[in-house]
Amino acid sequence: MKKQIILLILCLIPLSAQSLQWQEVMPGVWKTIYGKPDTYNLLSAADIKPNRTAIEKMAKTGLSLAMDKIRAETVNGQVYLRFPLERNEQIFGLGLNFQTVHQRGKILNLRMDHYGGRDNGRSHAPVPFYVSSRGYGVLINTAEYITVYVGTGVRKDSEIPPEARDRNTDRNWTSRPYSDVVEALVPADGVEVLLFAGPTPLDAVRRYNLYCGGGCLPPRWGLGFTQRVHRLYTADQVIEEAEEFEKRGFPLDFIGLEPGWQSRSYPCTFEWDKGRFPDPAGFVKTMLDRGVRINLWTNPYISPEASIYPAIEPYTGSHTVWNGVVPDLNHPRAREILAAQMKKDQVDIGVSGYKIDEVDGYDYWLWPDVAVFPSGVSAVQMRQTYGVLTMKMAEQLYRQRNQRTFGLTRASNAGGAGLPFVIYNDYYSHQDFITALVNSSFCGVLWTPEARTSRTGEEWMRRFQSVIFSPMAMINAWSSGTKPWSFPEVTEQVKYFANLRMQLMPYFYTEFAKYHFEGTPPFRAMALEPGFRIDNRTELASQSLDDNPYLEAVNRECKDQYMAGEYLLVAPMFTGETSRKVLLPQGKWYDFYTGAFVGESREITVTPGWDRIPVFVKDGALIPMMEARLHAPAKNEKINIELRHYGEKPGRYLLYDDDGETFDYEKGVFSWREITVSKNRKGQWEGAISKAEKDKPDNVGKVTFKMMTQ
Amino acid sequence: MKKQIILLILCLIPLSAQSLQWQEVMPGVWKTIYGKPDTYNLLSAADIKPNRTAIEKMAKTGLSLAMDKIRAETVNGQVYLRFPLERNEQIFGLGLNFQTVHQRGKILNLRMDHYGGRDNGRSHAPVPFYVSSRGYGVLINTAEYITVYVGTGVRKDSEIPPEARDRNTDRNWTSRPYSDVVEALVPADGVEVLLFAGPTPLDAVRRYNLYCGGGCLPPRWGLGFTQRVHRLYTADQVIEEAEEFEKRGFPLDFIGLEPGWQSRSYPCTFEWDKGRFPDPAGFVKTMLDRGVRINLWTNPYISPEASIYPAIEPYTGSHTVWNGVVPDLNHPRAREILAAQMKKDQVDIGVSGYKIDEVDGYDYWLWPDVAVFPSGVSAVQMRQTYGVLTMKMAEQLYRQRNQRTFGLTRASNAGGAGLPFVIYNDYYSHQDFITALVNSSFCGVLWTPEARTSRTGEEWMRRFQSVIFSPMAMINAWSSGTKPWSFPEVTEQVKYFANLRMQLMPYFYTEFAKYHFEGTPPFRAMALEPGFRIDNRTELASQSLDDNPYLEAVNRECKDQYMAGEYLLVAPMFTGETSRKVLLPQGKWYDFYTGAFVGESREITVTPGWDRIPVFVKDGALIPMMEARLHAPAKNEKINIELRHYGEKPGRYLLYDDDGETFDYEKGVFSWREITVSKNRKGQWEGAISKAEKDKPDNVGKVTFKMMTQ
Repeated sequence: MKKQIILLILCLIPLSAQSLQWQEVMPGVWKTIYGKPDTYNLLSAADIKPNRTAIEKMAKTGLSLAMDKIRAETVNGQVYLRFPLERNEQIFGLGLNFQTVHQRGKILNLRMDHYGGRDNGRSHAPVPFYVSSRGYGVLINTAEYITVYVGTGVRKDSEIPPEARDRNTDRNWTSRPYSDVVEALVPADGVEVLLFAGPTPLDAVRRYNLYCGGGCLPPRWGLGFTQRVHRLYTADQVIEEAEEFEKRGFPLDFIGLEPGWQSRSYPCTFEWDKGRFPDPAGFVKTMLDRGVRINLWTNPYISPEASIYPAIEPYTGSHTVWNGVVPDLNHPRAREILAAQMKKDQVDIGVSGYKIDEVDGYDYWLWPDVAVFPSGVSAVQMRQTYGVLTMKMAEQLYRQRNQRTFGLTRASNAGGAGLPFVIYNDYYSHQDFITALVNSSFCGVLWTPEARTSRTGEEWMRRFQSVIFSPMAMINAWSSGTKPWSFPEVTEQVKYFANLRMQLMPYFYTEFAKYHFEGTPPFRAMALEPGFRIDNRTELASQSLDDNPYLEAVNRECKDQYMAGEYLLVAPMFTGETSRKVLLPQGKWYDFYTGAFVGESREITVTPGWDRIPVFVKDGALIPMMEARLHAPAKNEKINIELRHYGEKPGRYLLYDDDGETFDYEKGVFSWREITVSKNRKGQWEGAISKAEKDKPDNVGKVTFKMMTQ
Repeated sequence: MKKQIILLILCLIPLSAQSLQWQEVMPGVWKTIYGKPDTYNLLSAADIKPNRTAIEKMAKTGLSLAMDKIRAETVNGQVYLRFPLERNEQIFGLGLNFQTVHQRGKILNLRMDHYGGRDNGRSHAPVPFYVSSRGYGVLINTAEYITVYVGTGVRKDSEIPPEARDRNTDRNWTSRPYSDVVEALVPADGVEVLLFAGPTPLDAVRRYNLYCGGGCLPPRWGLGFTQRVHRLYTADQVIEEAEEFEKRGFPLDFIGLEPGWQSRSYPCTFEWDKGRFPDPAGFVKTMLDRGVRINLWTNPYISPEASIYPAIEPYTGSHTVWNGVVPDLNHPRAREILAAQMKKDQVDIGVSGYKIDEVDGYDYWLWPDVAVFPSGVSAVQMRQTYGVLTMKMAEQLYRQRNQRTFGLTRASNAGGAGLPFVIYNDYYSHQDFITALVNSSFCGVLWTPEARTSRTGEEWMRRFQSVIFSPMAMINAWSSGTKPWSFPEVTEQVKYFANLRMQLMPYFYTEFAKYHFEGTPPFRAMALEPGFRIDNRTELASQSLDDNPYLEAVNRECKDQYMAGEYLLVAPMFTGETSRKVLLPQGKWYDFYTGAFVGESREITVTPGWDRIPVFVKDGALIPMMEARLHAPAKNEKINIELRHYGEKPGRYLLYDDDGETFDYEKGVFSWREITVSKNRKGQWEGAISKAEKDKPDNVGKVTFKMMTQ
């Protein structure tokens, strides 16, 4: 009866448009609530803790979006939102897209799904957040499936209406007329919307990430190298593989075990297979003693043969997945039972983290939208947030031990920025993997362009090079069994880049600290780089009005290069290419390997040679590097740092440091060391590093400077 | 306030499951209403008039589906339906799919859309009707977007649950476990469901079609040949083209004019272009005098420059399409204004019909789901039914004149079987066009595998041959300008088949009469053919558990051959093929061209030669053929008929006849002439035809018999 009374009240809300009341909940963050939103939403599922302090530190600014022009009304029982667009405004984000960066002109049905080869809104992170080139961000905080019309619909009452043209003879006719509005349909009785100020697009993203609690800070070892072994490897085979890495001098920080570690998979028991792993604790210890951590694959569907099955069954959904029950992870009992099993059997014996598979909801491998769950969360809401719920549960297990983890997931969503997991999938286009890396920066997620196997050594090396400049440097050989050295003709090159990954660890670790403390995505789109401009002309697919109308205009967009941290511009090469174009933002840019000047604020063509991935460095940059080594530094181990300076400008760099493993940084146990390079009176470059602060971590050993540009 | 009261009442309906009450509304047709359905639905939009008389003539039968096992409940404010499935049961239908025939194991989001290259429910006819191999049909009569899980979801309380298997080592593990249920999610407060008895799958389809009023009966000329000319042709060029057909001896019954006939297109004025067509009435008359009718392309989006724009604007939706307003065709005023313009300018001067483009709702070329319409029909409901509404409006114009029409549409839906329009689209896979022809028979629509252009003469001939054995024999040259004789190396063959189409007119006309009077689809799937069996084994895409899990099992299905009427089995050849396999149903089958025996109840391999499309004839069949001619017979023109007999069995055939042009057949002005062929006492074949009934149409001239099988 209670339910009916609530519904009855809902029905009395008038159906016509409501004027929206915006409240500035934090500096530069405004919130409105229209109608009666679901109580369960993306941010509540992620249980975010906004980093108010960091947001308050950002420059005070207004919103470059006319709040009074944002409309909400109820149409056919659903919420219809609209946001104005200006001419030439570009929209980025709306989830982890793989083929396009500019979203204006698209219709996206944001739905958690395996990526199906088209940017239509179905993705591993269907985040309802977008960033405008005009420097603001919009989050529609709902766990429903929503459709977003990003400048496609044209209302009769449009303020900037397009002109009707005659397709018979007017060559300027277009199949996609101009639209001045972003429209969204939310199938709910209400919705919460959040606006994030800039002034730059990067600032809007930062504000959004900080509102979600800031980005994750992986343990230092998480930024080393990781190999995932064949799915049926035994303990001995895994140990052998680690030995092989060491013998061949390839770095290795963690190994991922695939389904075979479990006694049953698809659905899973969450128990070790006694045949392949007779002594799990001994095995994990052996590996840890070698400096190699263990990550475990799993999916959350529980086998009838699992020991926890009888206990958890009452807290599972109405439908099975691969005949396994689906824990209602919004129900505390389901979480407790599953987490206890993971803790006892895996986390407590030293397992470092998880790879959470199959939570992206490829339609056929998930509960249908008609399913019900004991906690009352709908099948759709559960689908949109299941990745976040699983990550959250796993992260909590480690947090209780004051131990950081770093793992993999197939699904994230709004609010997930702080969860230390990298998204991966089964798709395998190298080009599209890079575009996903670009787009990950617009929606608070991390993405790995993992290498699995290749047809040629050249492809293997090209993929490997991209992986090195990504959040997780990984070979995923669950099926292929490929090793870094599987293609002898490029083994030396692959080793060079594996070592480079280790050398760059201080740089990437600092960039991740900025993700956490400042909200700045460590790998990001050029569109978020100050001083980057692209002539966003639309290129007609054809000038002939006779052509098939479905050949439509193509937006020129920058989707094959990205920033790796504040100073490095990475422009991957793809198999078969010998040269490529690179768009340089404002200022002078230098070759990463040689320090030579390459260009300034323009498009250049580079021919890097067959075994180099083009990487360019900003003028005045300082890149902190450590020596190449097989494993990440141990907790509080002192490390020698070489600071590489590029270009003509003096450099200033803040190097982040903490113990590398615990959550003590959340309590202030971290340090930023200031490093400067400038010319002395004699015109010679001189470098300096600030003293370590008292009672702060100090893991910096010897510091040397190298002037790369002569 | 009224709206609120209604909603308030809705809210008081209990949310738990209701027991369903089934009412047998006609023999073998049951209906239930769950909850409070939308008042606007697919059948109400189509304004169907069930043919109760014809349904009552069908054999009395029960339903081979356990009605008591059908469940409905409200889940998260939406209707959750489930229907039981038995082992080995196969499901067909659920819209105009292009690549698959068997739908069990699929998830379909039924949504009106341009076909996007995947059978996911988005199609030009997303009809929520399915047929079971067990001989029953189910219609979910709603104009909402619904998702149907066709034997994919597995409930914990499943009656025939699948077995959990270990993917680590069990080679019988499958990524798609067995499911014993069809589930559907209807986002509405209620829904109407109809069940159709068999006993055969074809009978279930027939009952469904008859419930919708029976299939359309085109005018006789509609079954002739039609050419669509280049979009910017002038009146003189069109006349010249018709002359060229005549000169070269190619049949031609109607010519289609593309956008250039209108003064503005995309959006449209619905007015003739005075430059290209200075004297429309004179032009149409000239063409009619040559025996060639005119069909006009249009889309329903009204240009601001149209003379009817000011009048119709108040009755249009909130959003524009190509900057044209969208008539609310559920509003009588919108219909009246638009229809009056079409009548005055086009129908009254002799135009024979329309090609209604762009009503299939390719997302980008339509109003968004947030749009509103004056009549109160939602954007979604309008999208699902807009094709039907436009066809209905056009058909009414002709019905008022007691004149039949035959045209083209890009969109239909449940209830549209009686509307004389054939679906076409922009896709162009010859193979998939045939699969669409197969699938059209499961959902009460017609489909043309139109020929547009080809890379080679071989391809042109192969496409042309398929078109001949389809509901509309058409070349669509709006862009290519291709003529039947454009590939000289196959012109003779193309002409042979164009003539064959004319010769088969009495046969196809009779088959269409069966569509109208008996509900039998004129072009149909082998699965609807009595005595057809296919071993529905599932072929694993790979036997290796290491493979990418997305390579899934493939259903073996019969999707490249079909029945053209009761007696002809058509097995198209595709470019590059020299032979193909054909699955023959029970009984003996004969070659259409030679009368030779080819096989019996089994798979055969045929090598038809480079210029024949394999066509096979049922034992005992009589195929009525007329002489090849350039145009269809005029109203009540007497025609000589040759009856071709095939095989060993005696033959009996009912030849349909009426005036070929008016709706008088609806008032009983038609005849069925009985034709028999049997052996006399001397063992010689003898043919006979019944006398024409008194006061019934009699257009049969001389009758001859030809025994094809020696």
